[in-house]
Amino acid sequence: MEKKAKVNAAILIIGNEILSGRTQDTNTSTIATWLNLIGVRVEEVRVIPDVEKKIVDTLNLLRSNYDYVFTTGGIGPTHDDITAESVSKAFGIKYEIHKEAFKILEAYYKPGEFNEGRQKMVWMPENAELILNPTSGAPGFCVKNVFCLPGVPSILKSMLGGLKNKIVGGLPIKSLTISLRTVESEIASSLTKVQDENIDVEIGSYPFFHAGKLGVSIVIRSDNQSKIDNCNSQILKFVNDKKIQIVDR
Amino acid sequence: MEKKAKVNAAILIIGNEILSGRTQDTNTSTIATWLNLIGVRVEEVRVIPDVEKKIVDTLNLLRSNYDYVFTTGGIGPTHDDITAESVSKAFGIKYEIHKEAFKILEAYYKPGEFNEGRQKMVWMPENAELILNPTSGAPGFCVKNVFCLPGVPSILKSMLGGLKNKIVGGLPIKSLTISLRTVESEIASSLTKVQDENIDVEIGSYPFFHAGKLGVSIVIRSDNQSKIDNCNSQILKFVNDKKIQIVDR
Repeated sequence: MEKKAKVNAAILIIGNEILSGRTQDTNTSTIATWLNLIGVRVEEVRVIPDVEKKIVDTLNLLRSNYDYVFTTGGIGPTHDDITAESVSKAFGIKYEIHKEAFKILEAYYKPGEFNEGRQKMVWMPENAELILNPTSGAPGFCVKNVFCLPGVPSILKSMLGGLKNKIVGGLPIKSLTISLRTVESEIASSLTKVQDENIDVEIGSYPFFHAGKLGVSIVIRSDNQSKIDNCNSQILKFVNDKKIQIVDR
Repeated sequence: MEKKAKVNAAILIIGNEILSGRTQDTNTSTIATWLNLIGVRVEEVRVIPDVEKKIVDTLNLLRSNYDYVFTTGGIGPTHDDITAESVSKAFGIKYEIHKEAFKILEAYYKPGEFNEGRQKMVWMPENAELILNPTSGAPGFCVKNVFCLPGVPSILKSMLGGLKNKIVGGLPIKSLTISLRTVESEIASSLTKVQDENIDVEIGSYPFFHAGKLGVSIVIRSDNQSKIDNCNSQILKFVNDKKIQIVDR
């Protein structure tokens, strides 16, 4: 794939446990942070239940709207793991035993332990490309621009390294944070001016409470370091004029 | 509103800081857990950037598809806080100074401190109903079935109590967790049978690593306690037959 200037992605979190509030999703932050480094911006995240039609429809929409889609969850051995079959249906391709995945898991388990439950994990869309799993054996997979990863955060993290060669990102997205001992309303109008003069730079303002004290973090994001530096100077100028203290955060 | 048996909701997280991976969303879990208690099921979550058109379009879709929509983020005083104006556009109603909110903040701040930046926080959709903020003064608001809350988790939490009378939920959603010292593949086929015999109960299976040991939590969810108890007995039966240890989690 040719290198584009801007490359975007969506994340699709599949799992009732996130929607019920029982489990706190941490995979979004893990994937998004990793993608920034290789120049891919996450522009949308959706969390949906383990319902086939919902997965198929959402996946088909996201994969046509974004350069890449990353799914998490639903590729284990139990009845509520329906991601692989749903991805097959979304693409209209066969759902079948993946020979390479079968070999990997046959070798991974002790003789006799590669039982029926575990064999479900080698059913995948036809000709899916595997994403190797250095933690617990069972691979993820990708079909075209859709990458299917497990829901368990530690396993997902260990698999991202293996994706690097499969993704063609744009320029890495850099960010700079300036944390201030102030409140947002003190800096709002000055910050608006900086944003208006730098419309292609993403400037965010985030209040925080830390060690019992209020503050605001200003985050500047761009793939162009000199534009970040320029915003930084403009912000430091009004911070200095207003005698606002810069703090660590 | 008349009480319905099933009431659902969507959560719309508005904020570049979640999409960039910089900030870990925790509001989904807070809102979803709280909604379960009053009988509202979260069926979809979306995270989108601070982009007006995206907010307007997503909000219009979600508010027609779900009984309730909860937004988080974008109601502060800075340039990237565009939720209130976007909600006004989504509903096609005026965006103006909310007199009651103005009075609240005028009284909240010391004389002279209710400056231009802070006054931005009282601009709301015409006739919006306020959601009081016991933590930091600035209220959220609701328009019809859309409830707009701040992004800062501690402030959001403190405002949920004030919502209770504005939401008509169904039967509270109960859940029971059984944690086992096993792996998913050991119980997959037995659990599938229980699910097949109880199709209107939500049964989830979630592997965990805790204190260096593997396990699986089975979560049974329903608004009907006797259906939960029935699934529980069926699960305990196969757990006992397989001599699987039950553990605390």
